[in-house]
Amino acid sequence: MRASIIAVGTELLFGQTVNTNATYLSKNLNLMGFDVMFHYVVGDNPGRLKEMIDVAFRDADLVLLTGGLGPTQDDLTKEIVAEYMGVPLILDDNALAQISEYFEIRKRKMTENNVKQAYLPLGCTAFYNETGTAPGFALEKDGRVAMCFPGPPHELEWLFEHCAKPYLATLSDKKMYYRIVRTIGIGESDLETALLPLIDGQSDPTIATYAKEGECSFRVASQRDTMDEAKEAVNQMLDSVTDIIGEYIYSYDDEEIVNVVVRMLTEKNLTIASCESATAGMFASRIADVPGASAVMGASFVTYSDQSKIDVVGVNKETIDEFGVVSGEVATEMALGARLKAGSDIGISITAYAGPDIPEGYNPGEGYIGYAYGDKVGFIRINGLRNDRSRNRNFYMMHMLRTVYRLVRGLPVVEY
Amino acid sequence: MRASIIAVGTELLFGQTVNTNATYLSKNLNLMGFDVMFHYVVGDNPGRLKEMIDVAFRDADLVLLTGGLGPTQDDLTKEIVAEYMGVPLILDDNALAQISEYFEIRKRKMTENNVKQAYLPLGCTAFYNETGTAPGFALEKDGRVAMCFPGPPHELEWLFEHCAKPYLATLSDKKMYYRIVRTIGIGESDLETALLPLIDGQSDPTIATYAKEGECSFRVASQRDTMDEAKEAVNQMLDSVTDIIGEYIYSYDDEEIVNVVVRMLTEKNLTIASCESATAGMFASRIADVPGASAVMGASFVTYSDQSKIDVVGVNKETIDEFGVVSGEVATEMALGARLKAGSDIGISITAYAGPDIPEGYNPGEGYIGYAYGDKVGFIRINGLRNDRSRNRNFYMMHMLRTVYRLVRGLPVVEY
Repeated sequence: MRASIIAVGTELLFGQTVNTNATYLSKNLNLMGFDVMFHYVVGDNPGRLKEMIDVAFRDADLVLLTGGLGPTQDDLTKEIVAEYMGVPLILDDNALAQISEYFEIRKRKMTENNVKQAYLPLGCTAFYNETGTAPGFALEKDGRVAMCFPGPPHELEWLFEHCAKPYLATLSDKKMYYRIVRTIGIGESDLETALLPLIDGQSDPTIATYAKEGECSFRVASQRDTMDEAKEAVNQMLDSVTDIIGEYIYSYDDEEIVNVVVRMLTEKNLTIASCESATAGMFASRIADVPGASAVMGASFVTYSDQSKIDVVGVNKETIDEFGVVSGEVATEMALGARLKAGSDIGISITAYAGPDIPEGYNPGEGYIGYAYGDKVGFIRINGLRNDRSRNRNFYMMHMLRTVYRLVRGLPVVEY
Repeated sequence: MRASIIAVGTELLFGQTVNTNATYLSKNLNLMGFDVMFHYVVGDNPGRLKEMIDVAFRDADLVLLTGGLGPTQDDLTKEIVAEYMGVPLILDDNALAQISEYFEIRKRKMTENNVKQAYLPLGCTAFYNETGTAPGFALEKDGRVAMCFPGPPHELEWLFEHCAKPYLATLSDKKMYYRIVRTIGIGESDLETALLPLIDGQSDPTIATYAKEGECSFRVASQRDTMDEAKEAVNQMLDSVTDIIGEYIYSYDDEEIVNVVVRMLTEKNLTIASCESATAGMFASRIADVPGASAVMGASFVTYSDQSKIDVVGVNKETIDEFGVVSGEVATEMALGARLKAGSDIGISITAYAGPDIPEGYNPGEGYIGYAYGDKVGFIRINGLRNDRSRNRNFYMMHMLRTVYRLVRGLPVVEY
């Protein structure tokens, strides 16, 4: 089925807001087997919005609209969609009750404007919103479906996940199942080469790879007559995939590596401390992104200057003099020093030239990750591929996470 | 003049890429006085692209297209635009020379496909690309202008800045001048209230405010017959603005506060060390985002646990016991300890409950920033407004930067 997306909001045309809603919906519609034809953005202008809906339905049977469901006079998406489909708006008692409750819980006064949000097109499937005041809905007429969502991304995403997905599943007679697998330590072309024989000559399940900064994901999807068949096809394929590249897989459920690492450390009752030069606290801060991180991290150290590596974590001046401050030897002493000073189970470190200026004799972005966990003590060399400070620093952080992941899982710590 | 933007690329419809190009162009077109009517996204499909161009020109005289200028068979934007405007493509010698040079410098072999990129529509204004192989161009016919840019954001932005801006300036008989001013420590509604009397009852210059996480920007713009007049109007307005809210302004040129802070510290030959609990290294890492940060930061400390605050930077156990670990007293000792241990001129700290779980007796996101610079030693209380860990942590970091900025500028350190 062909789908298009209309985002409504003058702030998008002013360049104040990025249209991430279209990206979110596109990704999910594709995952469910819909073909996304066009994106459109239109301001808060009833005439232009109506024109846009008309244009969109020329090439698609399903049109998803985001934004313009708020309580103010600017917000006209619902009114225009109902008018376009030729149905009146009527007061929805459930929506009204939910909006009233929303204000009661927050001890705020509900205004007349908010009552307007409880009106929905006659005959629609309501998407009741537990994260805000604007309900969404799907409205079908003559085989064409318009679907409306509020603009704030967290409300849109909640409604899509809880209300739109089940509705959309009824529009297709095939059932789609998929999983998103995350890997780290293998490049996209190597990943594709490894997976190609598995899908060669067959059209289902499909495998699609996506490269991100420092890691690769892939989606395994199947569309069959029943959900059970689709699940079996995907899981069988995942078994074969795991046989080939299992050691690089860190999640079968599209999780971030930092969440996987913090969970592993928590489960094994292990603590970690970092000693960071080039990343200067980015690794420790990323660990602290995860709620509950205090169980796994007590202290960490930013040792940006040479002298601070000596003073703060006890790197030997001789090691710096002999091998240079960007060296595996210094990285190793930094990891050992962090572990000792923080009294943690694991020490992890980075020393690198992130750029833009790289001293002679070093590659752009050259760096060393040091580690210390039990009697596993050492370093790996890391090659930041580009002379781009910000990307290199992020790349180092990802590979510090990869190193910790492999250490704790008992895999050999290898270069990348 | 009315403008619309078409982004070409199937990856946008798959949800793999966010259409930040439309945001960038919208922002800049608005700044130059153009009205942006619609955004469109279309896949790499010649028929649909042609349809889209036709739709776009119904409501706009200027249509900007991004993407689809690459060397592969998929890349058809230039061909379709030329066909739509009724002109042939001809080989452009300058473009060919530039593409050849691009490959020579990189010691890579130029392929037949890349020659295709040197063909441009007859009669166009070429935008020669110094950041990649695809030139852009503007093509005018019967008062309508199509403008094509390559898809990679850094190439688009370079071409817009260096080639499209001067071209677009010729389309308007008015001259536009603007400056973007950044403030921190004043809320958007207070800012608007303060600025309103300045623009009440006059249509030029205009002031538009934008709230961002933890700070506010505003744009002062003027459109006059000559650039000198526009500049004078803007700069006069800025003088009046400065009289009213000068102490909150940290940049008149849309700079990030971290860049301003690192430059101030460098100029004054000052060094800084952080001691971070809730932000866990985010502040130090942000400082290190700026090239040359090594001149202003030697060491910093992540003291996530209570014990590490005692062990690493010497906070007194009694202070924690008496006032609680999230308190101004502990924040102050953390700042003093960071300054002492790192041997820096300035110490800055944060201790806070970022969420999601907040102990009884504290507000959501409650925290304290401690500081020590010369004999200026103390703390401010900071109220993270929402129970959102990630936004709170970013908010703390911004206000640590604000605190350092005010300390070094000699302004009183005040709460927000």
